[in-house]
Amino acid sequence: MADIAPFAPAGSGLVLKTVENGVLRLMLNNPPANALSIALMQALRAELEAAGADPDIRVVVLAAAGKLYSAGHDLKELQGHRGDADGGRAFFSRTMELCADLMQTIVNLPKPVIAEVDGLATAAGCQLVASCDLAVCSDTSHFCTPGVNIGLFCSTPMVALTRNVPRKQAMEMLLTGDTIDASTAREIGLVNRVCPRQYLTQTVQKYAELIVAKSPLTVRIGKEAFYRQAEMSLSDAYDYTAGVMVENMLARDADEGMGAFIDKRAPHWTGE
Amino acid sequence: MADIAPFAPAGSGLVLKTVENGVLRLMLNNPPANALSIALMQALRAELEAAGADPDIRVVVLAAAGKLYSAGHDLKELQGHRGDADGGRAFFSRTMELCADLMQTIVNLPKPVIAEVDGLATAAGCQLVASCDLAVCSDTSHFCTPGVNIGLFCSTPMVALTRNVPRKQAMEMLLTGDTIDASTAREIGLVNRVCPRQYLTQTVQKYAELIVAKSPLTVRIGKEAFYRQAEMSLSDAYDYTAGVMVENMLARDADEGMGAFIDKRAPHWTGE
Amino acid sequence: MADIAPFAPAGSGLVLKTVENGVLRLMLNNPPANALSIALMQALRAELEAAGADPDIRVVVLAAAGKLYSAGHDLKELQGHRGDADGGRAFFSRTMELCADLMQTIVNLPKPVIAEVDGLATAAGCQLVASCDLAVCSDTSHFCTPGVNIGLFCSTPMVALTRNVPRKQAMEMLLTGDTIDASTAREIGLVNRVCPRQYLTQTVQKYAELIVAKSPLTVRIGKEAFYRQAEMSLSDAYDYTAGVMVENMLARDADEGMGAFIDKRAPHWTGE
Repeated sequence: MADIAPFAPAGSGLVLKTVENGVLRLMLNNPPANALSIALMQALRAELEAAGADPDIRVVVLAAAGKLYSAGHDLKELQGHRGDADGGRAFFSRTMELCADLMQTIVNLPKPVIAEVDGLATAAGCQLVASCDLAVCSDTSHFCTPGVNIGLFCSTPMVALTRNVPRKQAMEMLLTGDTIDASTAREIGLVNRVCPRQYLTQTVQKYAELIVAKSPLTVRIGKEAFYRQAEMSLSDAYDYTAGVMVENMLARDADEGMGAFIDKRAPHWTGE
Repeated sequence: MADIAPFAPAGSGLVLKTVENGVLRLMLNNPPANALSIALMQALRAELEAAGADPDIRVVVLAAAGKLYSAGHDLKELQGHRGDADGGRAFFSRTMELCADLMQTIVNLPKPVIAEVDGLATAAGCQLVASCDLAVCSDTSHFCTPGVNIGLFCSTPMVALTRNVPRKQAMEMLLTGDTIDASTAREIGLVNRVCPRQYLTQTVQKYAELIVAKSPLTVRIGKEAFYRQAEMSLSDAYDYTAGVMVENMLARDADEGMGAFIDKRAPHWTGE
Repeated sequence: MADIAPFAPAGSGLVLKTVENGVLRLMLNNPPANALSIALMQALRAELEAAGADPDIRVVVLAAAGKLYSAGHDLKELQGHRGDADGGRAFFSRTMELCADLMQTIVNLPKPVIAEVDGLATAAGCQLVASCDLAVCSDTSHFCTPGVNIGLFCSTPMVALTRNVPRKQAMEMLLTGDTIDASTAREIGLVNRVCPRQYLTQTVQKYAELIVAKSPLTVRIGKEAFYRQAEMSLSDAYDYTAGVMVENMLARDADEGMGAFIDKRAPHWTGE
């Protein structure tokens, strides 16, 4: 993988990518609505898995080409399988399993994933934003989980949504299907920051650079522990993370970082 | 059940009700404080259970007659049983079990329940608001969990409260017994919206109408999945909801809704 | 323990204390950064355990001497053990286990603990604030979990942080190591209130006095139930708290409090 590969299309062209200074920038590219078709989800998952294994990649940014971030699942693709012998059941299962797997690939990736949202993120598109570790959006972005309007409740999107957003606000989005603006998304915890459209990419870049400057080992340890301890009782979480801290301290980068801090010098990470 | 039955009292008169266009409006009617006596809780639970089974009812609004929403348990009723042979234990147990059952009846009802709050909601009255799927209040409403002031910590109300409100804010309400205003209630997630008193009913009505316009099957599937997945690990939640989505897609209303969306026409729900 | 013992140093002098009107005020006193050395953590835990057992103490305030609240673990102490035969493993384990135990001592203490923060609270110092039941800070206070900057992710601090703060905001603090101001800390739920520096102590005192005025039995019952039910499913939480309520009602202080409320007189607590 070249250090800089501006908009080199992946196999399918459904996910564009660039890599620069440790930041992999992926762009959904399935016009006009960046629908999460089987092909797009597969391409995106493949890029994420490759990024997870590539030591030169330290942060992933998940952006989108075009005016919409993502409108969620590809309804035409889904409806097209109603004529299958099983009425679509097998294809629907495949779609939902792939989607659930893609979202968990983001959560389980040993590197932070930042959503860079400009435009509308709906249903599984909104889920994608909620599934990222951090999210920044332009002030003209909007979010909704409107499956209820087409008879298909956003039941998988709500898994990610309800782990970010307080209960009553999540329920309102899901039951009404109504769209919230960027500022409301920030207020309820769906995104970390809202910025003017023209500053979106540089704001995300600033987050990415901050993270690239850390020890990749430390970031990997921390991200994994974050999601694992969140599902534990307080007592189990402390037992588990106390052990994580000990292993972290015994790593070379912690020795270096702690020593550098005491010596008031900049640390030099080796990722070990 | 008539389509419109304005303020037809239930058996006891403790819960008034009207049904209009699929919206069941229940009003606590136990002056002066709408105390949650055994009789009121039984009447309310019976109305909710009947609503759950009635296909003509699509949304329940839980409002109250008088200046208070509800002051919680009926302290005089409780104190009146201290002279029982067991010092009141059996009656206290019966009260608490009925209360816990009532609150879970709201959560488990296959139809959304919207709290319409005007005035003070305290203790189990505040719990009632927190237990509803959505809540709207007038700008002159207030909320508190003041059991600690009378020697009886709001331990059951906090089950609902802490599933809506961040930890430190919930603890502050519970430990101090202090009252919060409507705007703070919205800020911490206890209610979805605050509006001027004169617009309260129509604001709630707007929410109700939005929901009545959806497929009742879809809403039922989604509400059940919402609370079930909230208690699961991420991985289990995705396994579970992926299955929910597949069954939802195979239902007639999803076929209709997804097809209508693609064809840019209004869907026609049959609830199947 | 004398009723008033202004700044009587504990054994080590690392934790100063005063007791007045049922309020134990502990002050971290390990200049210049109130680092949580083994000795300080032991002294603080001992004071908390003693407070838990002392019927004259009803509320604990956790403040700090100097310009910093606490900079977290003592990095020099930790680094000093890298030369141990095991590379520090045993000492790091001891430190982390003591820290996890200290934080859970706060949570499990049968009396409310209020953090009074003036200045910077970082890493395990920030965890200390998050672990308290309530927290008030001066408007010049700051908070961060910057372990990632020194190669040691704040994995134990995040156990407390993520149980107070929404997911994306917690992740931002942990991944970037950036510092948030007092007002942001309040907005995301890390502290209950921000006040001008000169009013900090009296604001905390007001909270403490409110709580001292309650039945200590009731407060103990409620605090324990708060954290226990938070880890249960809704159904289990209601089964558990309904039982808690019944036992609470059968206590003398509930009889007194409920009766006093009905009679419109002030209750007299005996703590039974």
